[in-house]
Amino acid sequence: MQDLTPLIPHIPPIDEPALSEALQRRIDGKTKPLGSLGQLEALMLRLGMILGSETPQLREPQLMVFAGDHGLAARGVSAYPSDVTWQMVENFLAGGAAVSVLARQHGLALRVIDAGVAHDFAPRADLISAKLAHGTADSSQQAAMSAEQCQQALRQGRRILSEAPGNALLLGEMGIGNTSSAALLLARLQNLPIERCAGRGTGLDDAALARKIEVLSGVLQLHAEAVEPLQALAALGGFEIAMMVGAVLQAALERRVIVVDGFIASGAVLVAAKLQPAVLQRCVFAHRSKESGHHLMLEALQAQPLLDLGLRLGEGSGAALAWPLLQSACRILAEMASFESAGVSQQQ
Amino acid sequence: MQDLTPLIPHIPPIDEPALSEALQRRIDGKTKPLGSLGQLEALMLRLGMILGSETPQLREPQLMVFAGDHGLAARGVSAYPSDVTWQMVENFLAGGAAVSVLARQHGLALRVIDAGVAHDFAPRADLISAKLAHGTADSSQQAAMSAEQCQQALRQGRRILSEAPGNALLLGEMGIGNTSSAALLLARLQNLPIERCAGRGTGLDDAALARKIEVLSGVLQLHAEAVEPLQALAALGGFEIAMMVGAVLQAALERRVIVVDGFIASGAVLVAAKLQPAVLQRCVFAHRSKESGHHLMLEALQAQPLLDLGLRLGEGSGAALAWPLLQSACRILAEMASFESAGVSQQQ
Repeated sequence: MQDLTPLIPHIPPIDEPALSEALQRRIDGKTKPLGSLGQLEALMLRLGMILGSETPQLREPQLMVFAGDHGLAARGVSAYPSDVTWQMVENFLAGGAAVSVLARQHGLALRVIDAGVAHDFAPRADLISAKLAHGTADSSQQAAMSAEQCQQALRQGRRILSEAPGNALLLGEMGIGNTSSAALLLARLQNLPIERCAGRGTGLDDAALARKIEVLSGVLQLHAEAVEPLQALAALGGFEIAMMVGAVLQAALERRVIVVDGFIASGAVLVAAKLQPAVLQRCVFAHRSKESGHHLMLEALQAQPLLDLGLRLGEGSGAALAWPLLQSACRILAEMASFESAGVSQQQ
Repeated sequence: MQDLTPLIPHIPPIDEPALSEALQRRIDGKTKPLGSLGQLEALMLRLGMILGSETPQLREPQLMVFAGDHGLAARGVSAYPSDVTWQMVENFLAGGAAVSVLARQHGLALRVIDAGVAHDFAPRADLISAKLAHGTADSSQQAAMSAEQCQQALRQGRRILSEAPGNALLLGEMGIGNTSSAALLLARLQNLPIERCAGRGTGLDDAALARKIEVLSGVLQLHAEAVEPLQALAALGGFEIAMMVGAVLQAALERRVIVVDGFIASGAVLVAAKLQPAVLQRCVFAHRSKESGHHLMLEALQAQPLLDLGLRLGEGSGAALAWPLLQSACRILAEMASFESAGVSQQQ
């Protein structure tokens, strides 16, 4: 295994005013009213800055779906049984899930990372085995994982990313119970009441949501002293989130574009950003999820997502749906004519 | 020329409950929590209903950019000179405009329709000549066009569409001054104050916007009796909007998918919907424009647009940016596994 010490790499801020100005000049010189491509112009600027070019090119995008099971799921915090985690992993690999369809549509290399699913998979080309255990421990009884497991998850995430080709990572996840972990991390790291952070996940009704909130309150009380990002991550879980944190840190270090999916992927980015704030300069937020805490998460991350379609599926499906917008931003920078080159009159 | 009498075809409502139920069952049976693909599920339903299939297929999408000049532009209602209309048409055809880049990216056949540009173009493969005049008359002095010209524009729009291949129309437009026509149509047909309908267009400052509103108020007063949709269209212009109305009616008649771009394209749909309300069942609204009156337009059309990126470019650029979402909707309907076929457990 590649040496990736220290565990948490230093992510330097991207501070290149000359490139920033050149990009802005290029955008403003295109044959369109100033600013008329709205948020797509901010996206052009961001992609240019991350990839260090006035004409950034996205190469070999990797859609990585990190999967893991959660001991807390036994407490009835999800509308679905834990078996759905491994069943959906099989579905991803067989090409039948939403994210499989979208990855095919957009030419995204889809890989599933077994970070800790409670099931033994037969080896497959697109399945990366990095299993830390058969699911986390039940965080209502003890820490979801040990400090060693948490560090191991970060290292594995960094290694997997460092070995992947391309310059863009699309974050996806699968894990019955993982909206609970993400809600717990949001509540703890942003010091917010759990009632505002927890939502219906895959489809809880009012009574089940009330139970979920009660369970999660107990978890927060049990781990009241886990306030540092890595402590909170180990205490609250899960393996797939911790491995995503590692992948995000490594991707940021390598200045890859990180396309963030919904609530759970944003939770991983929240942890990574608490450790290394300049991670956020490398992120593109794909969408605003319908999961109720996501707007608070996005606020904490100062993120303006591209899509707002009421999605709440996870898997990286929102990241995949937003992907063509990133390609459009790059193509417009590279291919669109300037007022000068096209002989179009400027504003009066 | 094809006989397209009557001028306004009857558009029958799509009322096929068996298909609607079959589509909803198909969507609900996919391996995802119920409703978790949000607005994309509504899009699946709509595309299925328009194309009359549980697995609709989009074929040979046509991005038609209707272009025309406006006599009213001489009154200083735009930040750009009228020459920009023909210069941008040349830019579309040369492949250098935003919409050219996006059409290439997504495999959309881009055609420019000269509905009435104040310029003589050399013939080109992708330029359809349907010029009614070298720009409309100045609507602050007289009707933008005669009743005969308006009818002719509708017929031309219907003919052009009827001769185009495929089952999807993406609406685009170009015409310096045409946010004024769209704002005037919105104010007249929805009985709204012009101050709420008119916006900055390509980039007016506060003083210029105030002048624009004053000019448009005068136009509305001059044509106070033009209250019927076709009267209003003739009085307020423009040629490209009138031709789009014809294209929309014909596309609706043929049950093609109509992808509506921003403020001006929505204005054409507003006129078409006043004539034949069932047109709206065939429409997909691509985005919410930053042009200030667009939210009122969308409200009038009961539309929930797919994107909200602060775009205000026109050309069909928003329709092209939204296009991959339509493709995703169709692919998910066709390719995504069901709980049964994938062996995934259902909700507890």
